[in-house]
Amino acid sequence: MNDRTAAPVTIIGLGLMGSALAAAFLKAGHPTTVWNRTTAKADRLVAEGAEQAPTIGAALKASPLTIVCLTDYQAVRELLGEHEADLDGTTLINLTSGDSAQARETARWAERNGARYLDGAIMAVPSAIGTAEAVILHSGPGPEFAAHEPTLAALGTVTHLGADPGLASLYDVAGLAMMWSVLNAWLQGTALLGTAGVDAASYAPFARQIATVVAGWLPGYAEQVDAGSYPAEVSALETDARAMAHLIEESEAAGVNADLPKLLKAMADRSIAAGHGAEQYPVLIEEFAKPTP
Amino acid sequence: MNDRTAAPVTIIGLGLMGSALAAAFLKAGHPTTVWNRTTAKADRLVAEGAEQAPTIGAALKASPLTIVCLTDYQAVRELLGEHEADLDGTTLINLTSGDSAQARETARWAERNGARYLDGAIMAVPSAIGTAEAVILHSGPGPEFAAHEPTLAALGTVTHLGADPGLASLYDVAGLAMMWSVLNAWLQGTALLGTAGVDAASYAPFARQIATVVAGWLPGYAEQVDAGSYPAEVSALETDARAMAHLIEESEAAGVNADLPKLLKAMADRSIAAGHGAEQYPVLIEEFAKPTP
Ligand SMILES: NC(=O)c1ccc[n+]([C@@H]2O[C@H](COP(=O)([O-])OP(=O)(O)OC[C@H]3O[C@@H](n4cnc5c(N)ncnc54)[C@H](OP(=O)(O)O)[C@@H]3O)[C@@H](O)[C@H]2O)c1
Ligand SMILES: NC(=O)c1ccc[n+]([C@@H]2O[C@H](COP(=O)([O-])OP(=O)(O)OC[C@H]3O[C@@H](n4cnc5c(N)ncnc54)[C@H](OP(=O)(O)O)[C@@H]3O)[C@@H](O)[C@H]2O)c1
Repeated sequence: MNDRTAAPVTIIGLGLMGSALAAAFLKAGHPTTVWNRTTAKADRLVAEGAEQAPTIGAALKASPLTIVCLTDYQAVRELLGEHEADLDGTTLINLTSGDSAQARETARWAERNGARYLDGAIMAVPSAIGTAEAVILHSGPGPEFAAHEPTLAALGTVTHLGADPGLASLYDVAGLAMMWSVLNAWLQGTALLGTAGVDAASYAPFARQIATVVAGWLPGYAEQVDAGSYPAEVSALETDARAMAHLIEESEAAGVNADLPKLLKAMADRSIAAGHGAEQYPVLIEEFAKPTP
Repeated sequence: MNDRTAAPVTIIGLGLMGSALAAAFLKAGHPTTVWNRTTAKADRLVAEGAEQAPTIGAALKASPLTIVCLTDYQAVRELLGEHEADLDGTTLINLTSGDSAQARETARWAERNGARYLDGAIMAVPSAIGTAEAVILHSGPGPEFAAHEPTLAALGTVTHLGADPGLASLYDVAGLAMMWSVLNAWLQGTALLGTAGVDAASYAPFARQIATVVAGWLPGYAEQVDAGSYPAEVSALETDARAMAHLIEESEAAGVNADLPKLLKAMADRSIAAGHGAEQYPVLIEEFAKPTP
């Protein structure tokens, strides 16, 4: 299945995710070398055409690009720390989940050992890998990403966020915060409407529409944040806070959880107490951008 | 500007919102009667063709449909309570903001006095009234809404939610909870990325995309809620909770507010403690649907 025009690639780590990555490269015709601590996990991939490297050193030498995907950064540093000499001259892309500090530190370590390093975050489940639905974020040197983008494209929708290797982790958790927040707001509404006999299927299209419309406001609101100026063009924060009080009352009267409504109001109240009641909602960035008081 | 085919309508309350409602009916060619406590607020509308009623009684008699839009439900009950006899046989639509209990109680009172009653919630600012962007929710007897829908359509996108007059208020606060939640999640991400030198304009399109994609999941997730069964088809709640811990750590390390991340995790932890760690995210409905412990 190998394609002489497709660049060779090595995958270290054949857990659920690493195996999916290797399978996607094989399917796209890339000569694919694999290595895993538990060697038997390579069997299926070898049957599909992968080359199993006998050692980490051989794996790193087999391709100009090596992707590592292990449980956590500690496993990456333990495993590759014993093979630092073999990193020289290679390109390492670390798709293991971790935080931005770990990504930045691992970048420095890899570069000290002569490797070019990109950090990545996979916003997808293994079954989506190889489809456009799989979003894979990268950060680190831009030219390095550009050089390997045609290869990485076999994995899904790949993007480069900037030179700071910590960005992929930060975008990842920020995106997850959006995901959980949309889900929780939907659950709050579903619970409230449920007390009035409305089923979840009836309420969901309304929640979907509101979330989609509000998502469309974000680029415009971002201009207010970047300008540091929040004129109440559409409504003032104190109007929002009054409606938040209604949400709390409705939730308590209905006997549903009121923690989310209370947090919404507490954040707004803090900003109003700081004198921003007549400004527009995005002025809350001033509360979000500093530690919890 | 009156159109002999357009139905007459009366507006009681000419604040910012009531004036916008009256102006939209006039623009659509409806014979429009208005009344306001401070009579001078009718002047501009009269110049545009509105009829100013000398008394509330005359206002209620002038049209088969009267829309009331005052500060709050107390004002509605005070004002119309003195004119109960004039309610007999009329249709009253109350677009004043309030809670579901007030809506249900006001419906009972209006019906006791011989009126047909619909409650409504305006999810729009006055400047949007008369455009498709203005979403106006209605609840109460369906045939009554159907009879007046052609008239109400002059105000924007009008929908009917069900026979329970409390539904408009409930959908309204639930929709606002979604709005604030999307905005707060975006602010959390904007604050986090800001500490890495990413401006709000660069981050916003990513936040927008995630919110839009997740909004698209809601109808499918609603099926799990209605079925009361939450198989982990895509990921298990305990995997989410581990990533929530990363969000808290990143927020604290970056020196940004961690209240939202902590609330997300606290809700998930409660559900995991109740034995749902291996199920999918919508199982959290069981926490949302009961009072804060
Ligand atoms: N699965 C998902 O849905 C998903 C989604 C997004 C991101 N991710 C991320 O992708 C990464 C891998 O996840 P996964 O689902 O593939 O996990 P997994 O199935 O548990 O696989 C873990 C892999 O790490 C290896 N490993 C762990 N510690 C090691 C060590 N000290 N030395 C050598 N190898 C070691 C394991 O080798 P053995 O086979 O020898 O144990 C295995 O290959 C994680 O960071 C995860 O957060 C996963
Ligand atoms: N403005 C918005 O963006 C917006 C958006 C959605 C929903 N709403 C809702 O629409 C409703 C009206 O808002 P608004 O912006 O039009 O408020 P507003 O500009 O403050 O107008 C309030 C209106 O209520 C009248 N009123 C208050 N108490 C009264 C009483 N006891 N007797 C007689 N009349 C009384 C006022 O009469 P006077 O003129 O004599 O004072 C005025 O007509 C509120 O429930 C609001 O929550 C507004």
